[in-house]
Amino acid sequence: MSPFTGSAGRTPDWQHLRYELTDGVATVTLTRPEKLNALTFGAYADLRDLLAELSRERSVRALVLAGEGRGFCSGGDVDEIIGATLSLDTAQLLDFNRMTGQVVRAVRECPFPVIAAVHGVAAGAGAVLALAADFRVADPSARFAFLFTRVGLSGGDMGAAYLLPRVVGLGHATRLLMLGEPVRAPEAERIGLISELTDEGHADEGAQALARRLADGPALAYAQTKALLTAELDMPLAAAVELDAATQALLMNGEDYTEFHAAFTEKRAPKWRGR
Amino acid sequence: MSPFTGSAGRTPDWQHLRYELTDGVATVTLTRPEKLNALTFGAYADLRDLLAELSRERSVRALVLAGEGRGFCSGGDVDEIIGATLSLDTAQLLDFNRMTGQVVRAVRECPFPVIAAVHGVAAGAGAVLALAADFRVADPSARFAFLFTRVGLSGGDMGAAYLLPRVVGLGHATRLLMLGEPVRAPEAERIGLISELTDEGHADEGAQALARRLADGPALAYAQTKALLTAELDMPLAAAVELDAATQALLMNGEDYTEFHAAFTEKRAPKWRGR
Amino acid sequence: MSPFTGSAGRTPDWQHLRYELTDGVATVTLTRPEKLNALTFGAYADLRDLLAELSRERSVRALVLAGEGRGFCSGGDVDEIIGATLSLDTAQLLDFNRMTGQVVRAVRECPFPVIAAVHGVAAGAGAVLALAADFRVADPSARFAFLFTRVGLSGGDMGAAYLLPRVVGLGHATRLLMLGEPVRAPEAERIGLISELTDEGHADEGAQALARRLADGPALAYAQTKALLTAELDMPLAAAVELDAATQALLMNGEDYTEFHAAFTEKRAPKWRGR
Repeated sequence: MSPFTGSAGRTPDWQHLRYELTDGVATVTLTRPEKLNALTFGAYADLRDLLAELSRERSVRALVLAGEGRGFCSGGDVDEIIGATLSLDTAQLLDFNRMTGQVVRAVRECPFPVIAAVHGVAAGAGAVLALAADFRVADPSARFAFLFTRVGLSGGDMGAAYLLPRVVGLGHATRLLMLGEPVRAPEAERIGLISELTDEGHADEGAQALARRLADGPALAYAQTKALLTAELDMPLAAAVELDAATQALLMNGEDYTEFHAAFTEKRAPKWRGR
Repeated sequence: MSPFTGSAGRTPDWQHLRYELTDGVATVTLTRPEKLNALTFGAYADLRDLLAELSRERSVRALVLAGEGRGFCSGGDVDEIIGATLSLDTAQLLDFNRMTGQVVRAVRECPFPVIAAVHGVAAGAGAVLALAADFRVADPSARFAFLFTRVGLSGGDMGAAYLLPRVVGLGHATRLLMLGEPVRAPEAERIGLISELTDEGHADEGAQALARRLADGPALAYAQTKALLTAELDMPLAAAVELDAATQALLMNGEDYTEFHAAFTEKRAPKWRGR
Repeated sequence: MSPFTGSAGRTPDWQHLRYELTDGVATVTLTRPEKLNALTFGAYADLRDLLAELSRERSVRALVLAGEGRGFCSGGDVDEIIGATLSLDTAQLLDFNRMTGQVVRAVRECPFPVIAAVHGVAAGAGAVLALAADFRVADPSARFAFLFTRVGLSGGDMGAAYLLPRVVGLGHATRLLMLGEPVRAPEAERIGLISELTDEGHADEGAQALARRLADGPALAYAQTKALLTAELDMPLAAAVELDAATQALLMNGEDYTEFHAAFTEKRAPKWRGR
């Protein structure tokens, strides 16, 4: 339990997704396989709130985001999201779109790496969720589609117009967000959208293996690496270099750095504590 | 006619380029094929003014930028630009270079996608014009060359040192802008400088087909996607996510979004209105 | 001698690296081949101070950074850096990390292009030094490894979390900085981390040839191209375009631009003066 625990309790039960925690590795699974894990208002809200809860404590050292069934996530449900938004007023529409953006910010800003395990379709909001993750472990069945313009909306949804150019460059990002065409695994790998390509059917396994490695390693070093990668996209070089210096000075006072040197000297593997 | 039409009239005739408009698709053609479409003071000024005029009204939903003859555009004319600038005073030199930069800003900021149709040479300012476009539809004869250092000038011309690293990454951009060597179609495609590679001789046709598709589609969604891609290069994540939220809330009040849902429900293709 | 020479004298002797200057081409060689050129406190300090001295005068028009022996640079020495930092207090740790960051800033901000000649290992701080260079000329033996998390530190060291996403995109950068795995030459070339791949054993030669070409060319144009590439990563488009305009107006008043036009008119090669 973190010393920074306030009055708010943990949510005892997540109704719109499956949450598991095994020795530092959290797994969040979208569980509407009959709808290709189409997102609902409740699923977005659960993702936002779960990531906020997990960010307040120290139980999680890596998180896998996965989808049950034939695909990762087909995006917002046509009936339960698109249909429902048609009867929302303007303030509610803004609330909804802010919520989806908060999920992306939470993925980028939570203090542990997030690994999307992608097989089959990652479309619309599903594609942005995967894009926001630190790693996309995908199998050859993966296909990404930023479908927003196909439903008459902006391709810049949930930070996609910010993130995608920074992952694949402005040229590819313009094409993908403007046209909404599917990007299959070979192209996704070629343009840098996939972090690790696994054998068919092994995306979940590969994502779990990576999460296990990260959770068992120098987890604070990984968390800070992620924090700096996120922050330094928005910082000038001079400020980035100063942030790096302060961060390394901090970690050089940490246990894992001392342990590395001891292990190296003693010619043994380090026993990482994650702090 | 846009309701936001002031006293300034339309320019009845563009003397330094060819302008055509067909059902929402504008085509701007550089028409000095005997000079490989080398740019003159007048051509820059016409591009700047034409894009400003088109940005004030709603007649254009996509724009193709093309070159007549053997190549796209060989850049500033050695005699009519380089020679002429040698006798300009410092204030005039600044005026000239601001004008060329305004063309690039206009391409990035106009409220419709711009498609460069590139065959043969796209050199110097011609390479930057293509770079500033949202799409580069090119055939195998295309070669890009950021020639500025070859004439003793900075590779950072007309925003190239801003745009190129964001399209192909800082490493490739440094090489291309510093050395000014030609990048042929296979390399250009590999590093993300080409959006769509067509068969030999079909760049114009491919660009027109893409423009037609964009003009016939949800044009406001495309315009906003472009606006967000342009703006979010210069925004931090939190602001970008907020801009996305406001934009989607706006478009969810739009006709095309309602039409998509109706068409989906009725199992028919949507009839996009572009608003 | 630059007219902007103050009281501070040149350092007569660099003890922690080898410095040579041949007709505008500086070569800085790391010379601890028995330790794969592992960096020491002294080597960092010499790099920082040498680059500062060279930036104040006009003797250098291009700089090659090379490593003697089997590899380019294996990063901070495990004993002389990691071991030594374990007994530093917090203020000293901050000082050390600021110094390493100052080296990277100096590489990015010095008024001449820097070419890293990479063969064999470029690890940890060695990988970041190469990354900070304008060009990475590498042979097939080159392997880059951002090892920081392997010793319990942040992958964002010396500006790596700022620079690497801007060179290879956020996806690859996250993977490389988080996991610290080696990137061999074929992958490095594919993702844009290598500027020029030479034949085995010819990285130094290739780097020298490029440096010679840059030093003999329009050196002020190259210097400004570098300055704009560095600055415009941190500027919005409108400001970048204005900076480009002012820079080109400046260079259009320069000797090399006039010389280009004269040479072109006289159908001869230009004689560049670098001003």
